[in-house]
Amino acid sequence: MTDTIDRTGLGGPVAPRSSVLRPLGPSELRITGGFWDAQQELNATAIIGHCLTWMERIGWIGNFDRAADGTVAEHHDGIEFVDSEVYKLLEAMAWELGRSGDADLEIAYRRLVDRVAGAQEADGYLHTSFGRPGQRPRYSDLEWGHELYCFGHLFQAAVARHRTGHADRLVEVARRLADHVYAEFGPDGRDAICGHPEIETALMELGRALDEPRYRELARILVERRGRRRLKTTLFQGSEYFLDDVPVRDAEVLRGHAVRAMYLAAGATDVAAEFGDGELLDALRTQWDNTVARRTYLTGGIGSHHQNEEFGSDLELPADRAYAETCAAIGSVMFSWRLLLQTGEAKYADLIERTLLNAVLVSPREDGRAFYYANTLHQRSQGSLPAEGEVSERAESSMRAPWFEVSCCPTNVARTLASVASYVATATDDGVQLHQFADAELETTVASGAVRIRVDSGGYPYAGTPSVAVESAGEVEVSVRIPAWAEGARVRFRDEVVSISGGYARVRARFGADERIRLELPMEPRLTYPDPGIDALRGTVAVERGPLVLCAESTDLPAGVDVSRIGIDTDQPLLATADGASAAIAIADPRAASWPYGQRPARGSVTTARVPLIPYHRWANRGPSTMRIFLPIAAGG
Amino acid sequence: MTDTIDRTGLGGPVAPRSSVLRPLGPSELRITGGFWDAQQELNATAIIGHCLTWMERIGWIGNFDRAADGTVAEHHDGIEFVDSEVYKLLEAMAWELGRSGDADLEIAYRRLVDRVAGAQEADGYLHTSFGRPGQRPRYSDLEWGHELYCFGHLFQAAVARHRTGHADRLVEVARRLADHVYAEFGPDGRDAICGHPEIETALMELGRALDEPRYRELARILVERRGRRRLKTTLFQGSEYFLDDVPVRDAEVLRGHAVRAMYLAAGATDVAAEFGDGELLDALRTQWDNTVARRTYLTGGIGSHHQNEEFGSDLELPADRAYAETCAAIGSVMFSWRLLLQTGEAKYADLIERTLLNAVLVSPREDGRAFYYANTLHQRSQGSLPAEGEVSERAESSMRAPWFEVSCCPTNVARTLASVASYVATATDDGVQLHQFADAELETTVASGAVRIRVDSGGYPYAGTPSVAVESAGEVEVSVRIPAWAEGARVRFRDEVVSISGGYARVRARFGADERIRLELPMEPRLTYPDPGIDALRGTVAVERGPLVLCAESTDLPAGVDVSRIGIDTDQPLLATADGASAAIAIADPRAASWPYGQRPARGSVTTARVPLIPYHRWANRGPSTMRIFLPIAAGG
Repeated sequence: MTDTIDRTGLGGPVAPRSSVLRPLGPSELRITGGFWDAQQELNATAIIGHCLTWMERIGWIGNFDRAADGTVAEHHDGIEFVDSEVYKLLEAMAWELGRSGDADLEIAYRRLVDRVAGAQEADGYLHTSFGRPGQRPRYSDLEWGHELYCFGHLFQAAVARHRTGHADRLVEVARRLADHVYAEFGPDGRDAICGHPEIETALMELGRALDEPRYRELARILVERRGRRRLKTTLFQGSEYFLDDVPVRDAEVLRGHAVRAMYLAAGATDVAAEFGDGELLDALRTQWDNTVARRTYLTGGIGSHHQNEEFGSDLELPADRAYAETCAAIGSVMFSWRLLLQTGEAKYADLIERTLLNAVLVSPREDGRAFYYANTLHQRSQGSLPAEGEVSERAESSMRAPWFEVSCCPTNVARTLASVASYVATATDDGVQLHQFADAELETTVASGAVRIRVDSGGYPYAGTPSVAVESAGEVEVSVRIPAWAEGARVRFRDEVVSISGGYARVRARFGADERIRLELPMEPRLTYPDPGIDALRGTVAVERGPLVLCAESTDLPAGVDVSRIGIDTDQPLLATADGASAAIAIADPRAASWPYGQRPARGSVTTARVPLIPYHRWANRGPSTMRIFLPIAAGG
Repeated sequence: MTDTIDRTGLGGPVAPRSSVLRPLGPSELRITGGFWDAQQELNATAIIGHCLTWMERIGWIGNFDRAADGTVAEHHDGIEFVDSEVYKLLEAMAWELGRSGDADLEIAYRRLVDRVAGAQEADGYLHTSFGRPGQRPRYSDLEWGHELYCFGHLFQAAVARHRTGHADRLVEVARRLADHVYAEFGPDGRDAICGHPEIETALMELGRALDEPRYRELARILVERRGRRRLKTTLFQGSEYFLDDVPVRDAEVLRGHAVRAMYLAAGATDVAAEFGDGELLDALRTQWDNTVARRTYLTGGIGSHHQNEEFGSDLELPADRAYAETCAAIGSVMFSWRLLLQTGEAKYADLIERTLLNAVLVSPREDGRAFYYANTLHQRSQGSLPAEGEVSERAESSMRAPWFEVSCCPTNVARTLASVASYVATATDDGVQLHQFADAELETTVASGAVRIRVDSGGYPYAGTPSVAVESAGEVEVSVRIPAWAEGARVRFRDEVVSISGGYARVRARFGADERIRLELPMEPRLTYPDPGIDALRGTVAVERGPLVLCAESTDLPAGVDVSRIGIDTDQPLLATADGASAAIAIADPRAASWPYGQRPARGSVTTARVPLIPYHRWANRGPSTMRIFLPIAAGG
């Protein structure tokens, strides 16, 4: 292929020009088996094709054809930001091609790129909903039009293609569009921002990939313009919703629309890194700390208001009304990853693990053909299965739906799974850092020479005995993250116990062929208590096992019992199962009060049964059910 | 005045042609002092004038002038249902005139009626947002246009005028409009309904007041048409939102948009009564029972989702996210009142008392110049005072706002307070039933002759010794409601203890001049425990005193302490204060966890202070604060 470029050291979705940790690209690390390989295979064999089929069927891809042939003003399918779904799919395809090189997928990718490229206008502008006769003018609705948001996703797709070794048509489309955006919104352009952040991180990365400082400067400008109440507010959406209430560098905590907040924070971290802006980086670290301490669900999910898909107040974390949008969790991974690269601190990798395994992986159904958009932590009523052939109107369906009118989540899951290997490890001059446990092979070069690593996850996340085989030319330091939950973890190398500091077990050595670092992580199920300040969770406890949050699903309860009647007898032991736990569950008799408030605490008779708790991310794969993570603490059965 | 008509026996806002209890009109009962008189005076001297001034200032009344002079299509102020606010104000003015006869108010009322009447079109249609060149066509947006909804409020205003003894211009405007609506939507008209129920109960009452069976039949038709998915749904609003998912007679519980649900239920009860439809009445009683048992806040407020202003699932009653719209509470009072008239069961009067005193009265600020739209039961963050001269964009402000872009609540409060005397008592052939405690004078006629009653509320709702002086020509039965909360209440007449059954103390006698029934209601503050199935309230308790729900407001806590840090030591006694209680409040030290979930229950050091708890409806009258009703149960201090 004539468009192939040198892949060495190209990095993953993020490759800062300066960072504490250096990300590894697909040429340096690949997942070889186990849990995460299964997720990537599901993505390759089901999710990507599902997204492509749906967007073809309902005309979202056809919009580009109609834009090319001049008919899109009369007939445009979907809302005004559906272009972005096509771009996220292209990004997913590009990363997946970097992983598998599948020939059929390559053909599908190129065909789709050609259709997108056909819609680009002479001056580089590319959007199917704006600017033609009969459509609204370009940039006439920056609050809600999502034009720059869509461009950003196109840029990220182009970065994926470039970083997997191609400088082909999509990259050129992106370059022409980015030049247009720079002219329109750069220093000599209009003083404006997009209602939905996303282009900031995308421009920065495109500017890094193509070595184009103007794009990186525009990312900076757009971040700095925000927070000065430029965007018109509405009856329900104020400046906070748009993150336009306070400049990024002055904010204390994330707030407003959770996806917007996370995408902006990711882009602002890129800007801080690119321009050595320590003040901005410190502000973002503070925002991360405060958001994690007060506005994050146990799953890593964020956004506790359905209204406006927003964060709630501090410690306002209702399980039953958790919105916890899949895309917000993905945005959180993006933000944490950028801070990890800039600081090397394990807490960011801890949250990435928690969020990927629980808040992101809960979205796709086990067959990869239906998705959660919002991810409740407590399903009160047994829903019904959405029709397989219908677009779901509402984000909040009780069961996973095949597609949505606003369908940001399926394609976001696809691009995340396709690039998930990028989160596994990093390098420095001194050595290599393993942040996530996946069966993987890694080859890179550090100051002392080549290093080759094979990680055996040992059945993780269900088992706790990963091992790391290392071979190095010179002395290198191999750091392995010990998760914060893994109290009492043991790490051994050459029959010695390795000390753990700052969240990493660090071994410095000249490693012989296949010398192994061996971990023992405590995988007994454990009780996890919410902070007493979380009103919605008072008197409850969750069960976790390893990195997995577990849940009780009515499917596993005695017939006719839903989760509104259960509690957990914490005097009885939790027992490990193959992939979860079992607990002594107290089941109360149904109630029949005519007024749900009374002069004494209500007590009913209770029976106890041992019930399996399953990984939260796997719930609702066995038909309609009710579910809860936090279990009321019942008196001993 | 030539338009004055005979007022005898005209009834209040509701006067069914057949009912177990007969409502009393303003000519039969008036409030003479005490708590409710103060509310009515606030309404007369502040709220009504405030609404009039605001709607004049921001052009909502001016819309009618511009409709009359043909310029409204170019310039219309406010959203498409602001006509209804003017009508609710007219209703408030009409009831208030029936109470006070104030001459200046009469002039203001007539002037306003003339301006409204000027906008009526030749065929009776009357709406400032639709139907003129440059406006959308009539009935082109039944889902969201609120045309019939606005008409309904006009009809209710006309009923108020008629029932207070006038058949003047507003009544004629209403009659012409109702004739138009019958032609358009009646048996020979279009098979359609309005997105927002309201016209059903209004048509029924106008049909009763004007003795026009066609209007009553149209009310029936509109109720029966609903629930068959005629209304177009949107991305966020499904058929349930519109109560268009299930026919009224087939529903088990109220659901969807809470105000719509309550207005529809009120109208459906009217239909059931009018047409002797026992099946429909039974369905509504079941819906009331299930809604009260599972979907009602302690305050009587309803609607636990901000999203769509909807009911939540059963027992989904988060205090902090309580939407509990003022108008929904008023709708609940309307529904309960109609069921009380049809059944004579005390539980409906119990809920009316709870809802009026707590969920409705919390809306107006103590000066009557600012209002809550949504009424949280737990304010987490100290808000700021909205500017007195500005329209509030958002319904959810932390402090009461002077006016809203959607400003349904202030005028709804005004019409409710102006007609609140109608809820105090009813009559039957046998006697009189007192449902609410207000200082009041009542004169009516029953089968055995005239009866005259003076109620001394005895400082109610702060004190528990109401007494009822009765004088009757023949033997009559006087029934006094004993609230469900008043366990151990004593009632005495002629030195005998009166037995209580079915929620009423009933005395049958030929009463001598000023013979008194005396009550002793227990007014000690009491702990009220939520049902263990209410997840959001687990481990908390509320304090009530008499009919009032109390709350802790940060204003009453030690400096710098907000309600996120408090609990109640239930081992210490509650003490009564003049209008509330004091409790032993445990105050925890501020927390500083980096992750709000941990392997053991968190414990901090705690101090205890005795703190006043005030009536919930009076909170936020002393500047920005935090507040909560349900207090975490702390270990003994």
